[in-house]
Amino acid sequence: MVVESREWFLSSYAADGVPTSEHLKLRSVKLSLDETSIPENFVGIQLLWISVDPYLRSRMTGHMDGLHFPQFSLGQVISEYGIGRVIGSKDSKFTEGDIVINPFMPLSEYSIVPNTFLRKVDPDNDMPLPEYLNALGIPGLTAWVGIELVGEAKQGLNVFVSAAAGGVGMFAGQLAKLKGCRVIGSTGSNEKVKMLKEELGFDDAFNYHEETDFDAALNKYFPNGIDIYFDNVGGKMLEAVLNNVNKGAKIPLCGMISEYNKAWTDRDGVRNLLNLVGKEVKMQGFIIGSYLNHLGQFEMDMQEYIKAGKIKSKTMINIGIESFLESFASIFSSSNVGKVVIHVAE
Amino acid sequence: MVVESREWFLSSYAADGVPTSEHLKLRSVKLSLDETSIPENFVGIQLLWISVDPYLRSRMTGHMDGLHFPQFSLGQVISEYGIGRVIGSKDSKFTEGDIVINPFMPLSEYSIVPNTFLRKVDPDNDMPLPEYLNALGIPGLTAWVGIELVGEAKQGLNVFVSAAAGGVGMFAGQLAKLKGCRVIGSTGSNEKVKMLKEELGFDDAFNYHEETDFDAALNKYFPNGIDIYFDNVGGKMLEAVLNNVNKGAKIPLCGMISEYNKAWTDRDGVRNLLNLVGKEVKMQGFIIGSYLNHLGQFEMDMQEYIKAGKIKSKTMINIGIESFLESFASIFSSSNVGKVVIHVAE
Repeated sequence: MVVESREWFLSSYAADGVPTSEHLKLRSVKLSLDETSIPENFVGIQLLWISVDPYLRSRMTGHMDGLHFPQFSLGQVISEYGIGRVIGSKDSKFTEGDIVINPFMPLSEYSIVPNTFLRKVDPDNDMPLPEYLNALGIPGLTAWVGIELVGEAKQGLNVFVSAAAGGVGMFAGQLAKLKGCRVIGSTGSNEKVKMLKEELGFDDAFNYHEETDFDAALNKYFPNGIDIYFDNVGGKMLEAVLNNVNKGAKIPLCGMISEYNKAWTDRDGVRNLLNLVGKEVKMQGFIIGSYLNHLGQFEMDMQEYIKAGKIKSKTMINIGIESFLESFASIFSSSNVGKVVIHVAE
Repeated sequence: MVVESREWFLSSYAADGVPTSEHLKLRSVKLSLDETSIPENFVGIQLLWISVDPYLRSRMTGHMDGLHFPQFSLGQVISEYGIGRVIGSKDSKFTEGDIVINPFMPLSEYSIVPNTFLRKVDPDNDMPLPEYLNALGIPGLTAWVGIELVGEAKQGLNVFVSAAAGGVGMFAGQLAKLKGCRVIGSTGSNEKVKMLKEELGFDDAFNYHEETDFDAALNKYFPNGIDIYFDNVGGKMLEAVLNNVNKGAKIPLCGMISEYNKAWTDRDGVRNLLNLVGKEVKMQGFIIGSYLNHLGQFEMDMQEYIKAGKIKSKTMINIGIESFLESFASIFSSSNVGKVVIHVAE
């Protein structure tokens, strides 16, 4: 079988700014999926769902960034966390029709991938497929590691989450609530403020486009100070947090969406790191790849929470592989609500 | 007995810049040290030695700073870590002639102080008195907590110490060497570079006034990256370190001497905190007051090291209480070598 497959590739690096059609291009290729075309230990896949994550930005600048992911080569197909259907296999563990998750899925309608990172979705698990890219995927795991392991959330602590209506933030806030914390979120629209409070159970939330004096806002929402700051944005918000932290506060850092589209020398410097000293604050970066030994615990916790209705997911589903560029831009303009995924095929 | 006592007091706050004779003034007062003048649980003291520490700066700005020490009131006598001789006592634990250490010793030739924080110096311990303000005082304890407890120094790690010839830095470097680390220091003169290498056993050191591209310097001195950065300065040097850290690096923060004389909004912002994420770096502020439960272990370790010649102290001794203003300014101009103390009386 030879298929026509559309795929997104990197045409040129974007040193700063949100990548455009100049940097990311869609092309159509012909791909043979005959048995003879699939090497041993490889699997032929039709892409069904693909995740759109902010971290991807740091693989398109042309130099190693603070996240330390390798750069895509020019001409290389973009890869992302995705879900596909097996349509040919040279690995006895996978057979045609299996649904598989791949953390490095090519952004191609069809592809032939190594079996290395493939995991089968349990067909008996009554879970909508996009949830594997959301609560049970990178966003959920990032939030869980940050709140449970790095932030050490406990009953009664005051927790602040930035980009709280985004993929990671919505879970960070809900997980902190389940731990008995008081949780406040910041987000980019009044509609999202409402959602955080009314649907996701945040104690309060504010729109950072309206309350632009972050220092004053945090002072108001945290009369007793901040014990944990789950940082998704960096820059000015982080600086304001450091003016409002409590003794022994924890700041898990998983990424900084306000900073990805700027060259590092243009980024907002944080001027009050001295506050870390007197308040004995611990600021700690993490990447989920280092916590995969906790994956079992995470999946058990999260599936139970989802099934019990204790964790809700918000998913923004865009349709068709052609929507990738627009989908990617949306996460930097704060126009997304929840996790952005693309539904490529049924 | 009525004595004439000279004392340093705060005359006006210095929002920025190094405090001058406009802010810190010496006055002479008459003080009665008769038995009837000393209240119960107070002790009359003649000041012998006083420590001069950078953190003191943050108590003179007129607003709570990142170190979160309370401000001196205007007209209030400055207090510092000091050593004195008991010349009158209303506490049975202290008798005339005892030598005592006081973390909050008034910068007065004579004073009457509460017994709360007083500790007697063991007269059988063969240790020069200034050492109690140096290796066995705030600088030694700060270095020990940062290297042993927060930095978790271990055999083979690459350690960078800034302000390495200063009171804290010289011990941080030597303690890291005793742990089997490779240690590089930065300092403000070639003479001090020489001292670090030839006298204090640093593996290498550089003069930051000559190697002004910190990023390039660190890249050169740390071909295998930095595992622990004992930060004494903050600002640009911290930023350069974040471009050269290894996975899982630790950054204990005890204070930032480059920043104390600037209003916080004028401070050098650190623009590359995103590097904390990909390298999973832990940056942690600490103040020694939170580690006093380790004091016994610290004193045992440190006395043993000193007696065995494994830790060397550098002390810059200025003479007379009148030298305080000049002594204090010297620690901000990088003209000091080692710990600055004042010898007030024999």
